[in-house]
Amino acid sequence: MTTGRSRIESALEAAIAGVEADSAPPMLAAAVRHAVFPGGARVRPLLCLAVAEACGGRNVPVVDAAAVAIELLHCASLAHDDLPCFDDAATRRGRPSVHAAFGEPLAVLAGDALIVMAFDTLARACAEAPDRLAPLITIISRGVGLPNGIVAGQAWESEPSPPLEAYQRAKTGALFVAAVMSGAAAAGADPLPWRPLGEKLGLAYQVADDLIDAVCDEAQAGKPTGRDVALKRPSQATRLGHKRAFAHMEELVSAAAAAIPPCNSSERLRALVRMQATRLAPRQLARNAA
Amino acid sequence: MTTGRSRIESALEAAIAGVEADSAPPMLAAAVRHAVFPGGARVRPLLCLAVAEACGGRNVPVVDAAAVAIELLHCASLAHDDLPCFDDAATRRGRPSVHAAFGEPLAVLAGDALIVMAFDTLARACAEAPDRLAPLITIISRGVGLPNGIVAGQAWESEPSPPLEAYQRAKTGALFVAAVMSGAAAAGADPLPWRPLGEKLGLAYQVADDLIDAVCDEAQAGKPTGRDVALKRPSQATRLGHKRAFAHMEELVSAAAAAIPPCNSSERLRALVRMQATRLAPRQLARNAA
Repeated sequence: MTTGRSRIESALEAAIAGVEADSAPPMLAAAVRHAVFPGGARVRPLLCLAVAEACGGRNVPVVDAAAVAIELLHCASLAHDDLPCFDDAATRRGRPSVHAAFGEPLAVLAGDALIVMAFDTLARACAEAPDRLAPLITIISRGVGLPNGIVAGQAWESEPSPPLEAYQRAKTGALFVAAVMSGAAAAGADPLPWRPLGEKLGLAYQVADDLIDAVCDEAQAGKPTGRDVALKRPSQATRLGHKRAFAHMEELVSAAAAAIPPCNSSERLRALVRMQATRLAPRQLARNAA
Repeated sequence: MTTGRSRIESALEAAIAGVEADSAPPMLAAAVRHAVFPGGARVRPLLCLAVAEACGGRNVPVVDAAAVAIELLHCASLAHDDLPCFDDAATRRGRPSVHAAFGEPLAVLAGDALIVMAFDTLARACAEAPDRLAPLITIISRGVGLPNGIVAGQAWESEPSPPLEAYQRAKTGALFVAAVMSGAAAAGADPLPWRPLGEKLGLAYQVADDLIDAVCDEAQAGKPTGRDVALKRPSQATRLGHKRAFAHMEELVSAAAAAIPPCNSSERLRALVRMQATRLAPRQLARNAA
């Protein structure tokens, strides 16, 4: 997947460079860059590209734009989730979070700018393929906004007793669904058969994230851990215990792999799903389970 | 303009109702509604509609969606600008600001959700007119994001010595430019000739806003005042003095009216520009000047 990864980095670089005009306020431009580079695993855009390829997608600019939009929205959500009023996380990806590096106002604004940039990137790429734009925006908006996107997922934490499944589907699952469905739509294919893959993977990643929070220290995780217990957030690690949560995550990854619809390169996609899932799991648990 | 106003309220109501599914986190849904209703003067969407009409725009859904998108983005910017890390304003439009009513987390998320909803509203409306979607998104993104949209305008306040004109053009002018240009584009007309109208009006509104901050009390303004001096923000009221700033605002309104390109109903549009500007100016200054 080195090719996919470097393709994503180049496309992200082009999107960010495109808004770094001399007339931009320099600290906001720097905060936006800080929020995006260096990245994490870029799991969501990799999935988007892989699905587009599996659908035989040849329109490179539109596929790249979909992957970029998904990742920019993910980075926006991290910049906002790390704010003092939410997770109050001083670190992210092993270095200062956006608000720790640039202050709270610029972290709010960097998130806002990234959301706008995601949609603008799609619009620019679809100039020659206008029919693909509206479906892509609808798919991606559903993954991010109300009623059930990641913003709604984060908002469930402000409710007295969030329903665990709806919360986790929205908080993590929704953007995975958007990643795979937008890959298909960008390639000109029907996105609907791809929804189950995104749903299962999203649930698997949420369990993995709960386990990382419960099991890893800050150095391993690259961000503060132990937050779910401290903030009394619903967590599968707390609910099931570490061992059963790990087994549940593995089941979800298998279910995800099994949910890949018939396509050009289903073997490769299955391998990607398994590889990414292995990377995510806390190592100490993987060793115990092995 | 009663017709325009009620048309805008209905279109906004439809957009907000569209995301209030049973599965949405109830407090975020309520915070989003609180951010949008009851509104202020709805100046930007009224302008958008008026320009679309002046361009002979007949595609009602697309024109309505452009007006709605502009207003949702304006409401998002107010929800975020009122946050404790920016203006720390407990009131807005004469009642509690979003963070005062719902807390900081939901105010951040309501702004995020509104930004997403703005683009999604455009995408849904353009299903039958796909060629209009990309230009509309580009125009509107430019008004909001980096390098020179309202988010950049707000970010200039985090810089040690913001250039006054670039700051004010971005902070207020950019969304006025987007409002008039998107009205033209939604109507299928060339948006470029409309840019000067938006620029002049945006500058006039920024001066009016500076004057309200300097001259009015909280009851008159519906929001905390005296913030520019307290937060050491650039202000034309401080820079020019109240009387000269008021005269400058009036010049800008005249320049805006003069910048209306030849169109179907330029007289009506000119009247709208003057009427809205009169409404905005602090009454005590208008009396002194009369």
